[in-house]
Order: sequence, then structure tokens, then C-alpha cells
Amino acid sequence: MAQQHLDPTDSTAGSSPELPTALEQGGAPTADALACYLRAQATEFLRALRLHRETGGSGHGTEESVDAARALRRSARRISGSVHTFRPLLEEAWSAELCPELAWLSGTLAREHACQACLERLLLALHRLSGTAVLPAQPTEEVPGGRAVDRGNLTVGAAKAGALLERQLTLARTRAHSTALQALGSARFHAVADKVAVLASDVPLTPTAATADLTPLAAAARERLTDAVAALPLVTAGSPYNAEALVHGLSPDPSPQDAPWHQVRLLLRLHRYAREVLDGADSPVIARLLAAGQALDRHRDASEAAAAAASAARTPRIAPATAYALGVLHADQRHEVEAARFAFQQSWLKQAVGAG
Amino acid sequence: MAQQHLDPTDSTAGSSPELPTALEQGGAPTADALACYLRAQATEFLRALRLHRETGGSGHGTEESVDAARALRRSARRISGSVHTFRPLLEEAWSAELCPELAWLSGTLAREHACQACLERLLLALHRLSGTAVLPAQPTEEVPGGRAVDRGNLTVGAAKAGALLERQLTLARTRAHSTALQALGSARFHAVADKVAVLASDVPLTPTAATADLTPLAAAARERLTDAVAALPLVTAGSPYNAEALVHGLSPDPSPQDAPWHQVRLLLRLHRYAREVLDGADSPVIARLLAAGQALDRHRDASEAAAAAASAARTPRIAPATAYALGVLHADQRHEVEAARFAFQQSWLKQAVGAG
Repeated sequence: MAQQHLDPTDSTAGSSPELPTALEQGGAPTADALACYLRAQATEFLRALRLHRETGGSGHGTEESVDAARALRRSARRISGSVHTFRPLLEEAWSAELCPELAWLSGTLAREHACQACLERLLLALHRLSGTAVLPAQPTEEVPGGRAVDRGNLTVGAAKAGALLERQLTLARTRAHSTALQALGSARFHAVADKVAVLASDVPLTPTAATADLTPLAAAARERLTDAVAALPLVTAGSPYNAEALVHGLSPDPSPQDAPWHQVRLLLRLHRYAREVLDGADSPVIARLLAAGQALDRHRDASEAAAAAASAARTPRIAPATAYALGVLHADQRHEVEAARFAFQQSWLKQAVGAG
Repeated sequence: MAQQHLDPTDSTAGSSPELPTALEQGGAPTADALACYLRAQATEFLRALRLHRETGGSGHGTEESVDAARALRRSARRISGSVHTFRPLLEEAWSAELCPELAWLSGTLAREHACQACLERLLLALHRLSGTAVLPAQPTEEVPGGRAVDRGNLTVGAAKAGALLERQLTLARTRAHSTALQALGSARFHAVADKVAVLASDVPLTPTAATADLTPLAAAARERLTDAVAALPLVTAGSPYNAEALVHGLSPDPSPQDAPWHQVRLLLRLHRYAREVLDGADSPVIARLLAAGQALDRHRDASEAAAAAASAARTPRIAPATAYALGVLHADQRHEVEAARFAFQQSWLKQAVGAG
């Protein structure tokens, strides 16, 4: 079965496939554009999968295997995203089966990368916050009872906080890595890969799809995005230093205010994939959408890093100096959350995304 | 001697004395304007001193005695500030003697108010950070060894941090109050008050002052300000969320970067007093200078509040949850420092202070 995924004829598809766009073909974009996009992404998925296996996906990430895993997630997201947006044009049973499986796969593969990125973000922030003298952190024993603070040296806390975060997030990453490896070896994954291999040559369009126009479905995806953006507190976000992201920063669950932004991030991605289907990946619209999306990626990353800092502060028997450093770090990352909202607001104002 | 300060004829001077301005008098502003300003401020000083004594300045602050203390500091700053700027027009020995004594007095009187304002700022921030459920803080015993954190409830730390700050800053305020009372009863103070009482009727101008123009001395004060502002990192400050104020936020002494801003705050005040001498207190220039100055006041207040939070975190045997909350609070106030710099940059750009 694996042979099927490793078909060398797949290698013609690059990571930025140059598709004939609807405009190049003339007239309104049709289901042909969708089929072409899905075939290219499926081919890219198979290429990435082959690369991942060749570059030793079983060990801890070499640069190549990390790239391959990223390419796998990338194509999996594009397939499930475009299937989601243009679902009425595709066989219903097939879509209903494929979408959740691709979501499971890209979610599982993303976790290891997310742990690593979160750790790097937090260590970089600690480095910035403590000056050059403190890091790299070396694992040290925690001293209960606050002797570190008694010494009057809060900088000790930065190194200890770094070591604590490194332990916790490395453990989480290792677990995520094992889970991803198990997933890639599972019958469930092989079933997904088989489906994608078929998709690379044969897109299950509905009988009526041939004469359908993609535009209304893409417009609906755009409308879901603009509605969600309209519901965001963009006026507040556009006023710098509004201190909104740290409101309730000490309450047990400060993240509910982040959820609408995370949702917009997902809807922006779906909109972007729909534009890729219609205009091709090299369209200037895509570049502008990417910029806005990067602000929301940063929002998500900072939100998760802040949560990780708060979570580490709940570790039993840590020294007060460690807890203090984690508090500073938490607030710093919530500050980053606020900065990312500001950046998104600016980027959203600048581009006429709504009209794109 | 005290009788002299309580002369009821002084009561005609309000807190915003309406002086004949240089423009109303026509021509370049002369030493007359300076003499007039100094007499009015000296009169105001004596009025505030009398009020302070009448409203029981010896007890802990009623609203009236707080107002009186503020008015005392206000006029003391104006006298010493304008004497400083226009010193070549005043008797040298007299100025050399008066200025440091007025600085001592206003510094001593300011400390109690500063402690109270710092506590209020920090409790307000804790309230904002923890939602409405946690505060008002009630003094609780610290639990060494992090049992509070073991319960997984970081919000407990907010209440404990509030109680700790309240204890420490209330103690500091009480000490500052005693020091201020001692100062007001001291021979040193009576000597200052006598000098100011004389100033209310007799300004010791130099023999050549009568024909001097105030403009070059005021321009020199403005130039010292614009030079200091030019040395500030205003481009960084004008780019929101630059994270500059929290750089080295975990190092033992993060405040050196604040010093140039504090210096600009003082120079802006000297410039403003010089403009009051030249244009009167109701000039639109003054209002614009006040707005810029308020941003720098906020900068100073947030800087001191951040330092107080960091200092409280060095208290021995505090619970990790308390230390965590103080860390969040510290970062929040450094964020406020950054916000104040941004506000100053915006305000400075808007007004042509340099030309004012």
C-alpha cells in the first residue's frame, strides 16, 4: 500500500504549484479549477509523505524531516479547507469521511512543532527580559521556601523558569512526537493516505459540478470571515496600549477573549485557500491575506505561550523567584497577544480584504 | 514668627493667580514679570501653609489638608523653578540659599503623596488583572512552600500581593507623613518660610535686572528641554508595542532606561514655569505643555509602581502565587511605562513645543 504513495511520477509537483488560474482560463472559475487545485495538493501531500519517510521521520527532527512534516500539514490543511468551502461540488459521503480525518492528521502532526515553537518563543522572551547574562538556562534544583528570593536576586528566577519550561515543554514535545509517529504508522493514517492518493488523479466531483460557478461558494467563505472580523473588538485593538489582553490576566482562565481571534484566524485561512483555488497561489491578494494571517498566527502563539507560562507557575514547590519570572513572562506574552491584535487591525485596515 | 506666614491679607491670591502678562504690558517681558510671578507664588505658598495648619496638617490627611500640602508643593516648585531659570536676574547668594531648601521641602512633602498614589495605582492594576472577584485584598498569612500554588489557584496570589503591597506602602507612607510633619515643625522649615514671606513683598532682583529681557533665559530653558527630548529614543517610543520598557525587566536594576525620561519631565516643568512667567498660567501653550507633562508624570508613576512590585517580590518567605502575581504586576506597570512614552511621543509631535 505504501508503494502507492511513493510513486516517483508525483515528484513534478513543487511546494508552490503553478496552477492555471480561472482568469488565465477566461470566464468565471469552474469546478475544473477546484479539481486542478485538489489534484495538485494531493500530489504535494504524497511527495511530502515520501520525503518524510526518506528523511527518517522516525527519529527526532532533522531539518529535512521537519520540512517534510510541515509540507504534509500544509497540503492536508489545503485539501480539507478547500473541500470544506466547495463541499456542494464534491461527493457528500467522500467529503464527510475525508475532512475530519485530515483535520485529525494535521492536528496530530502540528502538536510537536507547536511545543517546540512555544519553548523557543518563551526562552527568547526570557532572554530578552533578563539581559544576556542569565541564559542559557541550566537545570537547577528548585529551592522551596523562597531562599532564592531571600538572596534578593530575582534574576535567578529567570534561569530557573527557563529550565522549568524547557523540562515541561520538551516532555510535551517528545510525547507529541511519539503520538505523531504512531499516527503515521496506523491503519487510520494509511486509509487517509490511500484516499489522498486516489484524489491525486481522480477528484470526486458531483454530476452537476461541471457547470457550477465557484464564485458564490468562495464569496460565502469570505462573508463568514468578514462577519467574524466585524464581531472583533477592532476599535479597541487599534488603540495601542489598551491593556485589554491582560484584563483578568490573573484569573484562572484568561483565554476566552482570545477565542474569537482564533476563529478569525481559521476563517481567514479558509478564505485564503478559496482565493488560491480561484486566483492561484501567487496572486497579490494571497500575499496580503498572508500578512494579516501572520498577525493572527503570532496572536495564537503568544496566547499559547502565555498559557504555558501560567501553567508552569502552577508547578508545586517552585521557588518564589521562579514564580515571579513566570509572572513577568506571562504578562509579557499577553502583551504580545495585544500587539498581535494591533498588527492585525492595522493590516486589516490597510488591505481591502473584504473586497478581495 | 509663624504669625508672619498667617497674614490674612495674603488671601487675595488664588491657586491660579491671574498675572498681568508680558504681552498685556506690551513689549518684551522684563524682570517685572518675574517679580510679579514670584510674589504671587510666595503669597500662594503662605496661603497654602496657613490652610495646611488650619486643616489639621498634623493628623493623617483630610481632603483639605491634602489639597493644602499639594498647593504648598506646587508653589514651592514654581518658586524654585523660576528662580533656577532666571537666576542671573536675582541676587546670587539669595538664590543659592533658597533653591536647595525649596527642593528639600517639596521633596519631603511629596513623598507621602507618592506612596499613597503608588499604592492606589498598584491596587487598581491588581483589580483589573484579577477581575472583580478577588479584591478588596484582605491581609492573609503567607504560606511558605507554595501550598497556595499547589491548590492550582493563582488568583489567590493577587489578593496576597495586594495585602503585601498595602502593608509595605502604608508603612512607607506613614513614615513619610511623620518625616513631613517633623520637617514642617523644624527650624530649617521656618527659615524657608521666612524667606518666602519676604519674597511675597520684596523680590531680590539684581541692579541690572530692571533693563534685562527675560526671553533669552526662557529660550535657554526651552533649549535644554528640546536637547534632552532629542536624545530620547522617540522613534522607538512612537512605534507601539516595541517591548522596550520590559527589556531587562528581570535584571536587578531595570530603571536606568527611565532616567532620561525623568530628566525630560523635570526640564519640561521648568520650561512650563518659564512660560507661565512670560505668558501667564492661562495661555494655551501651558495647556499643551501640561498634556505632554501628564504623560511623563504617568511614566514616572508607572516606573515607581513597577519598582515597588519588584521590591515586594523580594520579601522573604512569600508564597509562589504571591510572587507570580507581583511578576505579572511588575510587567503590567512596565507596559504602562511604555504606553506613557508612546503618549508623550504623540503629544510631543502634535504640539510645536519646540516653537512654543
